[in-house]
Amino acid sequence: MNLLLSLNKALTLWPQREAVVEGDLRLTYEQFGRRTAALAHALKGLGLTKGKVAGIIAPNVHQYLEVYYACAALGAVLNPVNFRLSHHEMSFILGNSEAEILLAHTDFADTVAQTVAACPQVKHLIWIGEGACPPVQAQAQAYEEFISGKPTELPDSPPLESDDLAHLYYTSGTTGKPKGVMLTQGNVTFHALSAIAELNLSDADTWIHVAPLFHLADAWATFAITWAGGKHVCVPYFDAEQVLAAIEAEKVTISNMIPTMLNMMVNHPKVNEFDYASLRAILSGGAPIAPETVKKIVDALGCDYIQTYGMTETSPYLTVSILKEHLKSLPEEEQLAIKSRTGRPFIGVELKVVREDGTEIEPNDEEVGQIIVRGPIVTPGYWQRPEATAEAIVDGWLHTGDLAVIDKEGYVNIVDRAKDMIITGGENVYSTEVEYVLYEHEAVLECAVIGLPDEKWGEAVKAVVVCQPEVEVSEEELILHVKERLARYKAPKSVDFIEEIPKTGSGKIYKKGLKERYEE
Amino acid sequence: MNLLLSLNKALTLWPQREAVVEGDLRLTYEQFGRRTAALAHALKGLGLTKGKVAGIIAPNVHQYLEVYYACAALGAVLNPVNFRLSHHEMSFILGNSEAEILLAHTDFADTVAQTVAACPQVKHLIWIGEGACPPVQAQAQAYEEFISGKPTELPDSPPLESDDLAHLYYTSGTTGKPKGVMLTQGNVTFHALSAIAELNLSDADTWIHVAPLFHLADAWATFAITWAGGKHVCVPYFDAEQVLAAIEAEKVTISNMIPTMLNMMVNHPKVNEFDYASLRAILSGGAPIAPETVKKIVDALGCDYIQTYGMTETSPYLTVSILKEHLKSLPEEEQLAIKSRTGRPFIGVELKVVREDGTEIEPNDEEVGQIIVRGPIVTPGYWQRPEATAEAIVDGWLHTGDLAVIDKEGYVNIVDRAKDMIITGGENVYSTEVEYVLYEHEAVLECAVIGLPDEKWGEAVKAVVVCQPEVEVSEEELILHVKERLARYKAPKSVDFIEEIPKTGSGKIYKKGLKERYEE
Repeated sequence: MNLLLSLNKALTLWPQREAVVEGDLRLTYEQFGRRTAALAHALKGLGLTKGKVAGIIAPNVHQYLEVYYACAALGAVLNPVNFRLSHHEMSFILGNSEAEILLAHTDFADTVAQTVAACPQVKHLIWIGEGACPPVQAQAQAYEEFISGKPTELPDSPPLESDDLAHLYYTSGTTGKPKGVMLTQGNVTFHALSAIAELNLSDADTWIHVAPLFHLADAWATFAITWAGGKHVCVPYFDAEQVLAAIEAEKVTISNMIPTMLNMMVNHPKVNEFDYASLRAILSGGAPIAPETVKKIVDALGCDYIQTYGMTETSPYLTVSILKEHLKSLPEEEQLAIKSRTGRPFIGVELKVVREDGTEIEPNDEEVGQIIVRGPIVTPGYWQRPEATAEAIVDGWLHTGDLAVIDKEGYVNIVDRAKDMIITGGENVYSTEVEYVLYEHEAVLECAVIGLPDEKWGEAVKAVVVCQPEVEVSEEELILHVKERLARYKAPKSVDFIEEIPKTGSGKIYKKGLKERYEE
Repeated sequence: MNLLLSLNKALTLWPQREAVVEGDLRLTYEQFGRRTAALAHALKGLGLTKGKVAGIIAPNVHQYLEVYYACAALGAVLNPVNFRLSHHEMSFILGNSEAEILLAHTDFADTVAQTVAACPQVKHLIWIGEGACPPVQAQAQAYEEFISGKPTELPDSPPLESDDLAHLYYTSGTTGKPKGVMLTQGNVTFHALSAIAELNLSDADTWIHVAPLFHLADAWATFAITWAGGKHVCVPYFDAEQVLAAIEAEKVTISNMIPTMLNMMVNHPKVNEFDYASLRAILSGGAPIAPETVKKIVDALGCDYIQTYGMTETSPYLTVSILKEHLKSLPEEEQLAIKSRTGRPFIGVELKVVREDGTEIEPNDEEVGQIIVRGPIVTPGYWQRPEATAEAIVDGWLHTGDLAVIDKEGYVNIVDRAKDMIITGGENVYSTEVEYVLYEHEAVLECAVIGLPDEKWGEAVKAVVVCQPEVEVSEEELILHVKERLARYKAPKSVDFIEEIPKTGSGKIYKKGLKERYEE
């Protein structure tokens, strides 16, 4: 079982199907396959063979898809790097993954040059894009020159087993140095097939790559959409109006968006100016969402909404808020409430919510436990970090560190990251619950609730809020809003209004960074 | 990756969903899970552990599903045996598979008793069913007593890997002694997920088990339907009217039928008396089908038709005649023509049609080559038959022995089994092509075309025909019918009219048996 199954299927069945669109560029699967084959031959020429690592630093350009598949064809390991990182972080990651080849976009030319200077093992640099390229301490070539004139049939692949390493994704490092999550051919392939099954993906689908391709929130679709014979639309950088226009122009049917993006799209002044008739579902996740927000999305874009939850360690999906058949006859409000939950287990995984002693919690939507998972989509562990692996995977079960309740229908709802739970005056406060109530207030665009050290309370609940454009609200009003809806000890002791909440590379709110900012 | 993923998913998400129906018996997934767990504990008590083999001889009773999953829970290997075989054949198979435990239905009590008498390694016999049980040379118990009082939580499973053996199916033995096809946990699990993806199976589906559960034509649905949270309707023995009535009563949405069954159903005098509104698709395969027949099925049952092709060695599906999106706008006739082809490659497999030198044939629907396949659904080989394995699987590709053409859209059409191809007067005649033309004649219900030794021609083309009830046709008329439509050398030299064409256990026409009948 390996990733080439998916590319070979598309090349066999849909050679003339439009495969990849980016701006004015349009490629059929046959053309995409030829370019990918040429890239694979070129990379092989530089010594990229089975098990060796290549890194990539790029926005969502069409070449990203080619790089994913060229590495798959060679049995090589791709290490996608977040382009928003500093050169210190990038060089740590590329040094740790031992990448000898780097494909990098000229938009990040200076950072890349500094990174390469600190990574003596990077011997070859392939520049993607049209920008200027500073001199670097590696053999450098331009992407199009690099693949030009190379054979356009895929090279013979080495024998590839399910357990062979396919990707190294570095976790955003909310704790300590980034760790390389190892994903195997089997992990990513099984996830892609699971996603096709859960989301009914087919050759009628068009996916828009809006969330970054260096992260699994979007990268999984590279393989699933290709396998199903669907079309890829690449958007290098997010721009709300541009994405709304592209949904209309390319007849996009499905995609995954980061909540901030969705927020900007449905609140965009031109949201009603485009036609979204083709769109059948929007997936999102990484933050809790209120039923009202789901309704707003469903109404604005005229499509279904699926809340998702996943981790890099699990390829990524662990739950989806897809309705079970018998729930589809519930009143709309109740359906919205279920759709806004974290979701029920994804088809490719076994999921339990357990107490500290390992027994399963009651499915009463009240008792809180930790989510643990196992199955074919779960990482074998962290690259060269056996101790971190042993800590995360116990008796075959990956411990997610996420705290959740579960209802009688099997839909979990995450109440907090274990390490974000606040203990104030001896009471547990799940930050997500407070955020959820804050989001119900019309003035709140984004918010984060954290615990700050406090002499009296141990930790004090602190809310940090970004207001909707041109809407104002007072600290007192928001605190009162929470007190009216939750136990008083859960209400923030103080509220700060800021312009932007710090995020991780994958768009998740970066609470550790936020806490550090206050603790300094 | 193992089969328990599917059962655990149903037990977690659909405990109260109706899972299994047989006659008046109705079980939810929770009840089905409890019975399966009790059976697993009982079998474990008899020493059935990981890698050990149990046999089963039974019609499509609900216990069959429990036996499949109880073995999965123990990591044991299930060997389903065709109940139509003689006791000589049964004892060869059970002796070869080394089964120590046999679950058998009282409908076959005498054959089973004779079988067990010839299988000293079978130590335990569990009788399914209500019939009388003759004394046997093994410790015998009744199924319900056997599971009664046992724990109703699944036992802890041993560690199960993708490569661990799950099933042994014996091929129907059209050549030599039956061979045990080894299917692994990974083979069957990956196929089940592939089927969910290809057929959009979900918890809205109800499957009727009509084709025998001892064969993969139906057995795969045990795992796919459970995994998707669908309902199983068990029909112990085929009866056209009973199946038509059950489709209405149980709101069946999808199933696979053997062509003979479908034939009897759509030609049944009461076919218009039932409501098939729930039915969305019927799958069939194992024999070529004419577009007119597809139309008849689609019209009679008001559902989509999907031609399939598969082998026990491939878990089983290799192709499905599902329309690609851009073909759905073709005129109905052209759509029917595609739907009646053997099909395009199944999502879980790589498929090529090759010349004798291994190069791929032209996709011009004319050149004929052999179908070869590889991928996660392909068997690792035959049980204790390394030479047969080495003959079938060359350089990682399973050679199917099926000859086919392929069109420019990637849909293959099988023209013959390599060994059924007739060479007459130096010309190749693909028996399927001649059968196809015979089926176009209104008098033909079933037919088979074979080559018989002939001094003048090397082989002479012979047609064997079963006529539609109360319709008559002459030998000369049928020969003329073929001559008007095909090259003259392809026309039968003679036609025999018989009552019934011999079939293999899976319902395929048994040409070897037919030839032997004439050669004797």
